[in-house]
Amino acid sequence: MNHRTDTSVTVIGLGLMGQALAGAFLKAGHPTTVWNRTASKADHLVAAGARLAPTVGDALKASSLTIICLTDYQAVYELLGAGEAELDGTMLVNLTSGTSAQARQAARWAAQRGARYLDGAIMAVPPAIGTAEAVILHSGPQADFEEHKPALDALGTVTYLGADHGLASLYDVAGLVMMWSILNAWLQGTALLRTAGVDAATYAPFARQVAAVVAGWLPGYAEQIDSGSFPAEVSALETDARAMEHLIEESEAVGVNAELPRLIKAMADRAIAAGHGGEQYPVLIGEFGRPHAG
Amino acid sequence: MNHRTDTSVTVIGLGLMGQALAGAFLKAGHPTTVWNRTASKADHLVAAGARLAPTVGDALKASSLTIICLTDYQAVYELLGAGEAELDGTMLVNLTSGTSAQARQAARWAAQRGARYLDGAIMAVPPAIGTAEAVILHSGPQADFEEHKPALDALGTVTYLGADHGLASLYDVAGLVMMWSILNAWLQGTALLRTAGVDAATYAPFARQVAAVVAGWLPGYAEQIDSGSFPAEVSALETDARAMEHLIEESEAVGVNAELPRLIKAMADRAIAAGHGGEQYPVLIGEFGRPHAG
Ligand SMILES: NC(=O)c1ccc[n+]([C@@H]2O[C@H](COP(=O)([O-])OP(=O)(O)OC[C@H]3O[C@@H](n4cnc5c(N)ncnc54)[C@H](OP(=O)(O)O)[C@@H]3O)[C@@H](O)[C@H]2O)c1
Ligand SMILES: NC(=O)c1ccc[n+]([C@@H]2O[C@H](COP(=O)([O-])OP(=O)(O)OC[C@H]3O[C@@H](n4cnc5c(N)ncnc54)[C@H](OP(=O)(O)O)[C@@H]3O)[C@@H](O)[C@H]2O)c1
Repeated sequence: MNHRTDTSVTVIGLGLMGQALAGAFLKAGHPTTVWNRTASKADHLVAAGARLAPTVGDALKASSLTIICLTDYQAVYELLGAGEAELDGTMLVNLTSGTSAQARQAARWAAQRGARYLDGAIMAVPPAIGTAEAVILHSGPQADFEEHKPALDALGTVTYLGADHGLASLYDVAGLVMMWSILNAWLQGTALLRTAGVDAATYAPFARQVAAVVAGWLPGYAEQIDSGSFPAEVSALETDARAMEHLIEESEAVGVNAELPRLIKAMADRAIAAGHGGEQYPVLIGEFGRPHAG
Repeated sequence: MNHRTDTSVTVIGLGLMGQALAGAFLKAGHPTTVWNRTASKADHLVAAGARLAPTVGDALKASSLTIICLTDYQAVYELLGAGEAELDGTMLVNLTSGTSAQARQAARWAAQRGARYLDGAIMAVPPAIGTAEAVILHSGPQADFEEHKPALDALGTVTYLGADHGLASLYDVAGLVMMWSILNAWLQGTALLRTAGVDAATYAPFARQVAAVVAGWLPGYAEQIDSGSFPAEVSALETDARAMEHLIEESEAVGVNAELPRLIKAMADRAIAAGHGGEQYPVLIGEFGRPHAG
């Protein structure tokens, strides 16, 4: 990895993730200060060269860059809102998971206290931290990101999304819903194929190939959404809905779960009922974009 | 494409799909006989060189290979079960959509009448027929498939799945649930990002990239299913469930649809309630593999 190693960094919060973050900074050669409510969790990091700050205030003063990774935003306010933590002049990167609204609120809260603030989201598990596989999303002022990217690079593949502090959280959950949806679709297919004695390893390459092909359609389909026009160039929603009925029938006939197939059809049926049966699949953005009282 | 063009073929059923199939055989140079209940749908095919058979029986006799593509299996039985259709000695490839059970039943029905039978499923829209993009799945006796593959190659990318006649239908719906799941996950993410003013075209490459990465995990995860052992090598289901809660919270907070997030969490919660919270995601095969009375 190509990053500067002379920058001092502080990591506040040494849970599973915070320990991995501090470990990656140490491994990359950064002078690293740590703090955790339960101080004993710093022991092996101190043994590896980290400095344990006696107080949060001291931890914040120790470095030009502070990473915060706690359970939730509530914990962040409890800890940094206490009198002893002087935020004025600090540079905070908050990698605690939360919603976009929480991130924007925390950015305002930090600004009121004179701190610079980036919000981040970690799309990785602790053992991946420090490798290119760990994607870490950031949002907030671009200049702050650019200035600290050389140090943040120690954590993995570090990405900047935009000035709106809520973006990291939004991209994070958007990525997660894609991940679980692919896994669930694969599990549904695997369950169907197993009823015919096909094992999961035989089916997986087919699922992988379909996923790769469909993923390739997304940029083109995005143009329909941005233009708000959904001509049925490839297939009309009502044709899809008939095939969805086959999926439900097959799932029920072989005795596997049919909830995912039924949800897929329910969303399409609602768009058809609203008069969009002759349009193409991305017209469903209208259904996904609003709450359903069901 | 690399196929023999001297084989005579018959196409029975000239709906949107049947017309595309007959057109592809003609374009590839095959002597092509067609039949349709509504004869006028054959007009442009006849103009392009097809022979219109006066009866179904005549259509079946005309070629060594007959493709059937009707609305549903009911239509197939009504048409081919009538007295005039002599099936003995024919080679049928049924590309009509249906369930795996319907395909197996049709194979028995055909065998009783002395016909050889392959079942197929078309993973394509009519305009794609005749191009490599049109994937057509086949199942049934391998020797019959191999013998007729040179002619079937005119239709697109022709694939053989196995001797069980039900396989084509099962792979077909498994592929469809993957397709709709990726599109829905992308729509959910797009709906989330639009609340922050991010347009669909900006978000799509991120969704595409996540999909490609996750698709790559499937063969490895399949090994867990086949071995029936789900150690939490990367992440435990209960850790995933906490992130699922964030997804629901975020969707509700920004006012987009939360049904897909809630279904994702409901499936995970059931597996956790059954004691699998410390295991890895593919343990959900237990939930996907059985009906839910909810
Ligand atoms: N683990 C993952 O796979 C993963 C992946 C992506 C994102 N994340 C996110 O990373 C964040 C941390 O996760 P984790 O896995 O490290 O969690 P964890 O192991 O449960 O650690 C939680 C950390 O928060 C601290 N904490 C909680 N409440 C506090 C308070 N009121 N005052 C001070 N400190 C407090 C804990 O201190 P004590 O040690 O004193 O309890 C501990 O350092 C979460 O937002 C999580 O969603 C985790
Ligand atoms: N279109 C697609 O995008 C697509 C994609 C994949 C798979 N498929 C499958 O392909 C099959 C045909 O689809 P399609 O789009 O061609 O449908 P279609 O345009 O509605 O055509 C239906 C065909 O079935 C015939 N038919 C129906 N009932 C009959 C009966 N009792 N006796 C004789 N003929 C009968 C119709 O004859 P008439 O012309 O006389 O009505 C017509 O030729 C379906 O199983 C469909 O699921 C279609």
